[in-house]
Amino acid sequence: MIKTRFTERFALDHAIALAPMAMASGGRLAGAVSDAGGLGFIGGGYGDEAWLETEFAAAGNRPVGCGFITWSLAKQPDLLAMALARKPLALMLSFGDPLPFAPAIHDAGAALFCQIQTLDHGREAIDAGATVIVAQGTEAGGHGGDRATVTLVPEVADLLAARAPETLLLAAGGIADGRGLAAALMLGADGVLMGSRFWASEEALVHDSFQQAALAADGDATLRTRVPDIVRKLDWPASFTVRSLRNEFTDRWHGREDALLEVAEQEAARYSAAAKSGDPTIVGVLVGEAAGLITDIPAAADILARISRDAETLLFEKAPGFARA
Amino acid sequence: MIKTRFTERFALDHAIALAPMAMASGGRLAGAVSDAGGLGFIGGGYGDEAWLETEFAAAGNRPVGCGFITWSLAKQPDLLAMALARKPLALMLSFGDPLPFAPAIHDAGAALFCQIQTLDHGREAIDAGATVIVAQGTEAGGHGGDRATVTLVPEVADLLAARAPETLLLAAGGIADGRGLAAALMLGADGVLMGSRFWASEEALVHDSFQQAALAADGDATLRTRVPDIVRKLDWPASFTVRSLRNEFTDRWHGREDALLEVAEQEAARYSAAAKSGDPTIVGVLVGEAAGLITDIPAAADILARISRDAETLLFEKAPGFARA
Repeated sequence: MIKTRFTERFALDHAIALAPMAMASGGRLAGAVSDAGGLGFIGGGYGDEAWLETEFAAAGNRPVGCGFITWSLAKQPDLLAMALARKPLALMLSFGDPLPFAPAIHDAGAALFCQIQTLDHGREAIDAGATVIVAQGTEAGGHGGDRATVTLVPEVADLLAARAPETLLLAAGGIADGRGLAAALMLGADGVLMGSRFWASEEALVHDSFQQAALAADGDATLRTRVPDIVRKLDWPASFTVRSLRNEFTDRWHGREDALLEVAEQEAARYSAAAKSGDPTIVGVLVGEAAGLITDIPAAADILARISRDAETLLFEKAPGFARA
Repeated sequence: MIKTRFTERFALDHAIALAPMAMASGGRLAGAVSDAGGLGFIGGGYGDEAWLETEFAAAGNRPVGCGFITWSLAKQPDLLAMALARKPLALMLSFGDPLPFAPAIHDAGAALFCQIQTLDHGREAIDAGATVIVAQGTEAGGHGGDRATVTLVPEVADLLAARAPETLLLAAGGIADGRGLAAALMLGADGVLMGSRFWASEEALVHDSFQQAALAADGDATLRTRVPDIVRKLDWPASFTVRSLRNEFTDRWHGREDALLEVAEQEAARYSAAAKSGDPTIVGVLVGEAAGLITDIPAAADILARISRDAETLLFEKAPGFARA
């Protein structure tokens, strides 16, 4: 087993958390990750109260966290109290200043996780008293920023060492196997947060056809774009884009966003129908660059065991590629 | 010392190569890196024959390589013979299909290094019989693509394991300290190629004011853009952009490239004057996201020693952040 400050703090067997992917990280997946010794998060996303009720129920009594999109939560702040009433182990905020929500989270006894995409976000997270900062690189599937994991993680580690040494650090973005976990620990992280790898699991709330499209793709097959947000009428801040598989829809509209806006109504209907039928040529399949490292749809517990075992071998046993001379 | 296939193959003390940065990696820097046990490359770039003559002379008898921008070399292919006549240890090709040039390089007995930005490039490099593939992530300063180091490196490692297991792999993009080297080895690389870190060295052919601007910047301060290429009238393929520090010039023109084209003549004159005077508010300061990890301008030999020592500690001694439980 790999022991870090993160595994110690949350009594985990794996230095791995599940990303709270909106709609995909339901209670069954979050519960399975926590059951198997990782830290599962339900993806509160934009905040659908009925969905959250269902998914907290599906997690049952297992210790899970819940994540929200911060700028969206600001529009319906009552959802935070509803989530905190379920006594989540942790509450993760991403994409917006966490400060207004931090006191309620601290008061409820939940650990505050802040996912960040820049150093400036990191400073906000420190000011909000984050227990854990998740440094998310641009490799990540779904929403994210421009900075990449391999520089953001050590730079945030240096920031924390100087300003908040008790704050833990997870690496996110592009990590999907034991090599990635081992590399993240070398970069100064206390563990990793994975989205795409768990998105491609048995328990994820993801259409089978989307998972199959991701399995068929390599890491060159994704892009960062605003197209899925435009057609879904989601009012994202300009600094965040969506990483998804390139498809007919992004080929048609990426770079032609103004033209898409002119036909947004009819394209929205087409997009919505494709989401229901599971058509990956239209819908944004929100997987990251790690698609090229993902070749199967296992159970979440198998993912955790495999990644920890492979990282442990690299870190503590004979690694194949290097030795001390 | 860290021993890998790369250090063994080229009889190095450090699993570190110098990126052949156009104009910045001169003979003095390349020679210093090779002298100190790394592998130095002169930055042949767009191919200025007089500059190359001078810099090969500055490297003296030290074993160095030379790098070219492939699409540019295709316009003046005689430069390859001129470089190969100097008996470089290695010849690196970046940004274009290496296949047309590979036979001459192999015949001259130079090791062929191919820098790649996508898996498709990797397949081209294998077809060209590359001795070493450099997988360059988007974090890199100067020209590059969209894929990030943390996913590109393991994915290329898997490709090589399946199709060309004798081919060595270096990681590039965002690596500037011992954490980055250690992480690259975990990801499956045999070593690293560093640009920005050596760009900020005593021996680099870089204006002091540009180095100081980079030292003052954090990793959030860069962007990928076409603006410097437009104003320098460099005809780069659309898939490659330049990472540089944001400055007044990119703030004005990035996203307004069509407008820049309309005033390209006068802006080119202004840019050229600023390059001579060393004005970092106008000129693209070609440093990568690793700017946030770089805080000094040491000698190249000190950079090599420091990074290898720090990586060795992380890999083989007690790392600060994790342990086996």
